[in-house]
Amino acid sequence: MSTPAPLSDTPRTRLGRARERGRADRAELHAILDAGRICHLGVPTEGAPMVIPTGYGRLGDTLYLHGSTGARSLRLGAATEVCVTVTHLDGIVLARSIFHHSINYRSAVVYGRLRVVTEPEEKLAGLRAVSESLAPGRWDVTRPPDRRELAATAVLALPLAEASVKVRQGPPVDDEADHALDVWAGVLPVHQVFGEPVPDPLLRADIPFPPEMIA
Amino acid sequence: MSTPAPLSDTPRTRLGRARERGRADRAELHAILDAGRICHLGVPTEGAPMVIPTGYGRLGDTLYLHGSTGARSLRLGAATEVCVTVTHLDGIVLARSIFHHSINYRSAVVYGRLRVVTEPEEKLAGLRAVSESLAPGRWDVTRPPDRRELAATAVLALPLAEASVKVRQGPPVDDEADHALDVWAGVLPVHQVFGEPVPDPLLRADIPFPPEMIA
Repeated sequence: MSTPAPLSDTPRTRLGRARERGRADRAELHAILDAGRICHLGVPTEGAPMVIPTGYGRLGDTLYLHGSTGARSLRLGAATEVCVTVTHLDGIVLARSIFHHSINYRSAVVYGRLRVVTEPEEKLAGLRAVSESLAPGRWDVTRPPDRRELAATAVLALPLAEASVKVRQGPPVDDEADHALDVWAGVLPVHQVFGEPVPDPLLRADIPFPPEMIA
Repeated sequence: MSTPAPLSDTPRTRLGRARERGRADRAELHAILDAGRICHLGVPTEGAPMVIPTGYGRLGDTLYLHGSTGARSLRLGAATEVCVTVTHLDGIVLARSIFHHSINYRSAVVYGRLRVVTEPEEKLAGLRAVSESLAPGRWDVTRPPDRRELAATAVLALPLAEASVKVRQGPPVDDEADHALDVWAGVLPVHQVFGEPVPDPLLRADIPFPPEMIA
């Protein structure tokens, strides 16, 4: 395997605090993005930025977002620099002192300028990437988007050129003096799991749930 | 029960698209915030905003954030208007057409100016709120913060005065013509669950896991 290219080193992607949590490995950035279903997109506006949850997909070193052509976030975001953050909460870190409580997590922060994708082939590929990230396998078994639906959907591309990754894993780090305390310490892992599928009330009775959806 | 006060109606909290997903009920805002463990804090910087995951807690109509006094996000955020977003992914909505795929979710977006909490009593109450939100019950059984730890921790307050709530639940909404398609449609629920607790390797062998932590 070739060594993956390193992440960027710009003022805003250089870690300040908790440097030991930083990861410089592009493969880890990809893995964190690929494991997520929604990101938080931050768009500058006058005053506070707008931070909204939205779906996304990755193709190589490009992140794709989609949305209605009328969505304010995409309309505002297309013109300016944005930030996209993906976070996985992996565990609650229970220490013997309140101060050393923490969370185990993996997070990726990407900065860049959103590009509106107009070329039909890339637009379709970007939509497919978003779709596969949210619901793997569905692109090939459902009705594809028609001309009207494509026209109503904006696809935006964000290069993964400027990004940072932060990871905390492992047990709590308590002060030496607190180790004698009569308090349980450790990690409570957090997982995201699927529940029992709920069929559409309008579903034809002869169509079974495709088990590969939760494989 | 008294009727809860309505949410704000400012240009940035007024919903543009998918208005039917909006909720005007303050009790629903509280419920969404109380069900979450991390928020995404958006802080304006020159160019793109900075969007980072962080813990939070709620007391009445005030949201509390905390962090190291050295954290860049809190240092930048304290001076300006910020956005705090909490999102719960509740399900993957599988439609018969790619276009109508969606997610079921609950999200709250709060805008406002962060206030640095300096009054010792409020600072402790804010820290306790953040702690209880992340790890309920731990505040009372662990070593409380000492003077040095309190000095190293910044607590910031955000009023829940300007907020919007968006919720999507329920089955896919396919085009009438697609109902005949030979494709499973419905919702794949997503839940966040705890895994088996992992004791700190340094934990004294005679201390059992407190079962109320996962009750």
